[in-house]
Amino acid sequence: MQISQELYSKAQKLDNDQLRSIIRSEKFKGQTSGLSKNYLQTNLIILDKKYALDFMIFCQRNPKACPLVGVTDVGDPFFRTLGNDVDVRSDVPSYNIYKNGKLFKLVNNIINLWNEDLVAFAIGCSFTFEHSLIKKGFQIDHIENNKVVPMYKTNIKNKVSGAFKDTMVVSMRIFKKNQVNEVIKICKSFHWAHGTPIHVGNPKEIGILDINNPEWGDKPKALLEDEEYVFWACGVTPQNAILSSDIPFCISHTPGHMLITDVPEDAEVPILQ
Amino acid sequence: MQISQELYSKAQKLDNDQLRSIIRSEKFKGQTSGLSKNYLQTNLIILDKKYALDFMIFCQRNPKACPLVGVTDVGDPFFRTLGNDVDVRSDVPSYNIYKNGKLFKLVNNIINLWNEDLVAFAIGCSFTFEHSLIKKGFQIDHIENNKVVPMYKTNIKNKVSGAFKDTMVVSMRIFKKNQVNEVIKICKSFHWAHGTPIHVGNPKEIGILDINNPEWGDKPKALLEDEEYVFWACGVTPQNAILSSDIPFCISHTPGHMLITDVPEDAEVPILQ
Repeated sequence: MQISQELYSKAQKLDNDQLRSIIRSEKFKGQTSGLSKNYLQTNLIILDKKYALDFMIFCQRNPKACPLVGVTDVGDPFFRTLGNDVDVRSDVPSYNIYKNGKLFKLVNNIINLWNEDLVAFAIGCSFTFEHSLIKKGFQIDHIENNKVVPMYKTNIKNKVSGAFKDTMVVSMRIFKKNQVNEVIKICKSFHWAHGTPIHVGNPKEIGILDINNPEWGDKPKALLEDEEYVFWACGVTPQNAILSSDIPFCISHTPGHMLITDVPEDAEVPILQ
Repeated sequence: MQISQELYSKAQKLDNDQLRSIIRSEKFKGQTSGLSKNYLQTNLIILDKKYALDFMIFCQRNPKACPLVGVTDVGDPFFRTLGNDVDVRSDVPSYNIYKNGKLFKLVNNIINLWNEDLVAFAIGCSFTFEHSLIKKGFQIDHIENNKVVPMYKTNIKNKVSGAFKDTMVVSMRIFKKNQVNEVIKICKSFHWAHGTPIHVGNPKEIGILDINNPEWGDKPKALLEDEEYVFWACGVTPQNAILSSDIPFCISHTPGHMLITDVPEDAEVPILQ
């Protein structure tokens, strides 16, 4: 949901508890990019317990796309290892409800949908390494120009687990050719947030036929001669794997509207001590 | 099991396939420390599927002690993401069979015990960072003196998942005080193998009352004035958490007798490409 610049500027000054509080009370329903900058934000997937083991194994086998940073107990709506009061029913600004492989509706809380058979999974997010790159002086097109990062389906097959398969989804950022090695080096330490790029260079080599038509997000800027396309495994991969499975019901965050945790971005492990 | 120096020296020259082959045929039943040096070796836990989700969540919540590097499908005895032919029924030199929280017996294969309800978990192992420290010139007492690393129960509570709780088990190595920062730096990148130490210094601060009486492994050497105790989260933690739960049956590797994988030790993710 589009929100006013005034509200966004106000949110930028808030700490994690305050941010989750205005999200929980639905005073803030917008994207969370640029908020709570030094803490992990995460993708969210909620499934019935009967798919939970297969899905968790899917994440273990596809760790670049699905770095698992938190799992609730079955039926417990709190991520107790990610913060002192992180409630999956209300602490994400916008949720996607999927039925039978299709987006059914968007809602701002799932209090009436949560039940004792559900399990929630928090998956690392590219905001983490983007903050680090910006702090180190790199420019990122979609952030500078207030766009959503372009995302593409590839021909890279995911490792299968149960009903979960399909191919990897990637996000793309453009960097100067002589900066790519430094970008890779910085991202290597963010293993809870997709780590190093999975591909650099020609999009066709990973099955992306038209770089100007991303499946999700906005069209990228034009590539200059001294620049290179750089692709990362993307947290949309599990949503896509769920949609192409035969699972009748699933809840996720709405892309860009992430869960804000209390785990520092540079923590060695994503567990609140 | 104690094996001859001749057999051990022969095993040191073998590649992963050859090593798993002599283990599978029970020509080699010894410890795997120092073998297949550039590849991940792992701890092994095998449980009934009804405990698998809770155990996997236990690993996710306690990643320093239980870095999960592989999970089989339910009933499938192969770790397909860790190598082309890694069979959990025969590729570990020695297995511990536990019944009702007690060690029942040691065996060299579990072909007759494997069934379609079992799930196997591979957990990262300290051999990985030890190799790296030795390559960089550090001396490690238990390796130089052919002993088993000393391991201790601590008072550090594990994060609970289902029936799995108890406290963290640690392994201990002694380093010169002025080397500790370098040791920490080297270990940080081995996040699939316990990562940085969880404690440096006084053992009593983490509930270890007598450093000369480890619960597992051998007594350490005497501490010199310019040296420091350094403690790592240990892969025995999950065995311990299982034994203190009410789970009636479990199989693990016999400590020191690890599973040899085809994943390079310095891989960014523990998944064979």
